[in-house]
Amino acid sequence: MNHPRPLTDDNPLPDAIGARLRSQLGFLIEADRLKTILRQSPLAATDRRENDAEHSWHLAMMVVVLAEHADEPIDVGHTVKLVLVHDLVEIYAGDTPIYHPTMGADQAEREAAAADRLFALLPADQAREIRALWDEFEARETAEARFAKAMDRLQPQLLNWMARGGTWLSPGITADDVRARKAVIGDASAHLWDASKHLIAEGERRGWARPGHTPVQ
Amino acid sequence: MNHPRPLTDDNPLPDAIGARLRSQLGFLIEADRLKTILRQSPLAATDRRENDAEHSWHLAMMVVVLAEHADEPIDVGHTVKLVLVHDLVEIYAGDTPIYHPTMGADQAEREAAAADRLFALLPADQAREIRALWDEFEARETAEARFAKAMDRLQPQLLNWMARGGTWLSPGITADDVRARKAVIGDASAHLWDASKHLIAEGERRGWARPGHTPVQ
Repeated sequence: MNHPRPLTDDNPLPDAIGARLRSQLGFLIEADRLKTILRQSPLAATDRRENDAEHSWHLAMMVVVLAEHADEPIDVGHTVKLVLVHDLVEIYAGDTPIYHPTMGADQAEREAAAADRLFALLPADQAREIRALWDEFEARETAEARFAKAMDRLQPQLLNWMARGGTWLSPGITADDVRARKAVIGDASAHLWDASKHLIAEGERRGWARPGHTPVQ
Repeated sequence: MNHPRPLTDDNPLPDAIGARLRSQLGFLIEADRLKTILRQSPLAATDRRENDAEHSWHLAMMVVVLAEHADEPIDVGHTVKLVLVHDLVEIYAGDTPIYHPTMGADQAEREAAAADRLFALLPADQAREIRALWDEFEARETAEARFAKAMDRLQPQLLNWMARGGTWLSPGITADDVRARKAVIGDASAHLWDASKHLIAEGERRGWARPGHTPVQ
């Protein structure tokens, strides 16, 4: 797997900045790459696809505004941290579209390799801290991680609604497939899962998602 | 002042979603507009300007990674909330470039009008909560707000460093002007302000910022 050289390799920060802060700033500069990773989702406000950095900000805003709908109490600040870091590994591993037929197969392996490389830019204690946040998000064993995942599934639905279809109309995908992919919202919030099902059902009724069932590859 | 109609006016969310959640989701869809507000800063990772949503995510990551450098103890989760919302008013008020000679004059008035309009999309209790976060950021009277502001000033310096100049080379601006605009970093962190001065001084030495002093209009 080829990873690019860190951006600061071509333009190192001044030596006068101490080593620990220099590595923190180097990591934060490398994080700029998240702004270049495109998702499938079309924006609501203009005619282009969303990138991972915008998406992560949007999820963080959703956590702040929608936390009251969590079925279990959540620590809002911690949940925000989970969504801020949840896509960082895509800087090296790329985005894996939710309805893609094959890319999911080696996704975990690609992303773990990317995490090893990316977080190593940080001081060791912080590399462990950020890695732990990412692992927590992926494992979905805490209420905060389940709510963060629910935001990650609900946000593209808002964009698809505004696009009158969007990725709901991905090749070979039906409204039943969408419901199956979105059901994890119900692990965090019965109320939000109910809203999600209303969006999909009304989308299906209007032809913004295909009716009936097509087997997912 | 002309504000656009909310995005969901053209495509209302299903009535089956209750009124409170529907207004929360309507606000979150309107927030998508932040991804269309361009700043002056050039990205480090690709050749285009940064937008406000990406910028806000980047500041949030900086809070998480750099909080240890705050001179006073800060609540990281709360500081992250401040940076998440700090530019929302630009959805209607637009970005005011830091080195622009005249746009600063009515900035406060434009942004207050935008806040009134935007936050009113939320349920009243949450409109007050988000408005309070924005007011806190602007007032800089808490340690969290001072640190959030420091991130807002430091982040473009990282991008300017990687661009070998960037907005440091705005018309009529010298390294002394840059230092004057960035000095608020020192209100939050002596260590980060020291690093900021190293970036500017080394940039000046390399010709990425103009030497000497030019009066700011």
